[in-house]
Amino acid sequence: MRLRNKKWAQPWLENHADLVINQDRAVSLKGNWQSIFTKEQPLQIEIGTGKGQFIIGMAKKYPDINFIGMEIQEAAVAVAGRKADEYEDELPNLKFIYGDGAGVDTYFAKGEVSKLFLNFSDPWPKTRHESRRLTYKSFLKSYQAVLPVGGELEFKTDNRGLFEYSLYSFANFGIRFNPAGISLNLHEDEDKMIDNVETEYEHKFASQGYPIYKFVGSFN
Amino acid sequence: MRLRNKKWAQPWLENHADLVINQDRAVSLKGNWQSIFTKEQPLQIEIGTGKGQFIIGMAKKYPDINFIGMEIQEAAVAVAGRKADEYEDELPNLKFIYGDGAGVDTYFAKGEVSKLFLNFSDPWPKTRHESRRLTYKSFLKSYQAVLPVGGELEFKTDNRGLFEYSLYSFANFGIRFNPAGISLNLHEDEDKMIDNVETEYEHKFASQGYPIYKFVGSFN
Ligand SMILES: C[S@@+](CC[C@H](N)C(=O)[O-])C[C@H]1O[C@@H](n2cnc3c(N)ncnc32)[C@H](O)[C@@H]1O
Ligand SMILES: C[S@@+](CC[C@H](N)C(=O)[O-])C[C@H]1O[C@@H](n2cnc3c(N)ncnc32)[C@H](O)[C@@H]1O
Repeated sequence: MRLRNKKWAQPWLENHADLVINQDRAVSLKGNWQSIFTKEQPLQIEIGTGKGQFIIGMAKKYPDINFIGMEIQEAAVAVAGRKADEYEDELPNLKFIYGDGAGVDTYFAKGEVSKLFLNFSDPWPKTRHESRRLTYKSFLKSYQAVLPVGGELEFKTDNRGLFEYSLYSFANFGIRFNPAGISLNLHEDEDKMIDNVETEYEHKFASQGYPIYKFVGSFN
Repeated sequence: MRLRNKKWAQPWLENHADLVINQDRAVSLKGNWQSIFTKEQPLQIEIGTGKGQFIIGMAKKYPDINFIGMEIQEAAVAVAGRKADEYEDELPNLKFIYGDGAGVDTYFAKGEVSKLFLNFSDPWPKTRHESRRLTYKSFLKSYQAVLPVGGELEFKTDNRGLFEYSLYSFANFGIRFNPAGISLNLHEDEDKMIDNVETEYEHKFASQGYPIYKFVGSFN
């Protein structure tokens, strides 16, 4: 997803630097993320948050968890931030990082993140772009570096090729597959839909009848 | 798949004991399977051969490989055997075992089987029947016991629940996933269809438009 540049984005981000944290500040917060939230509680992050529908939905649904949405595109993270900002003081458990998921282990200390979400990550279908996929082994290594032993990774996508690749990448990295952690048609699994929080992309593709794939596993 | 009993099956099997080998003889051949084929060449087996369409197709296509189809149902293995027998001397590289896949390591020595196929195995969807699934860990252990290090397992099914479960079971057993070894819609993957040999069930479900799932991995 590539959004058009938005003129208002840069000044808006400068004025909301406590909600959408930039890379430099993110690096300086390593090991101290609880200090920017009102409550000390488990921290879960999404990499590639897009316009924020999922992470905002999660923050509303689970007030006892702190959430951070990471996003590399200025226009997208500004849209997500502005949407979250509309809730004012209702979502003290939600922040964003305007930064690169590849740097996750420069922002967070080992065990500082309790769970990690990837939703509808860019597929990079060409073999020569394998290393750009957010489920490539170098990314998995940096996720492992911020999660505790047993920390979970959740991944949803509509993209068949990316999901096939990711299962291969997860298994051979040594990620444990959760029992009943895979769904090859999430929206037909009633029991799994009870707790499902939709993303923008998920809403779009599921409503067009495409299967949504989901994986839940945990790092050693 | 449960076939009706066939009156002709038992006498037919007794008269074709060199083509369809019974359990006792199979046990006695452990380590010596090459002796029953006309050529010494790699041996590949299918567990749950049904009426034999796949293994007969493979034997025709690959004369430089020996094949054995294992099947636990008398009526099914008799139908498969009779079909193979119609080719008379054209398929010296094909045999059957009328026996239980759970006993594969009582029939074959370590490394005697170079590759193993599971096709449209019975799904046993109830959790309490997990241990009956041919991809349950106790089965995987017996497959590992007959394959060489690096020996491959190929698995196809139309059954979403069984495939989801099997990916979990394979990964956590430590089976290596082959690069590009997973397809979540085989019949739409042109490159993978070039070499595809259909099974009876595959033909039926693919022609009804259901996705066919495929996995290829290898044991340590
Ligand atoms: C296809 S969109 C999906 C957005 C949202 N997660 C959803 O499910 O609707 C992928 C998003 O990931 C972001 N992204 C891609 N690579 C990233 C990276 N290395 N770090 C952070 N975000 C990234 C893109 O800018 C884009 O907004
Ligand atoms: C659903 S049918 C599929 C037949 C064929 N492979 C196909 O794809 O068309 C499954 C077959 O596996 C056989 N089977 C089930 N458990 C078995 C076991 N433990 N050992 C050998 N065969 C088994 C059944 O008798 C049945 O013929």
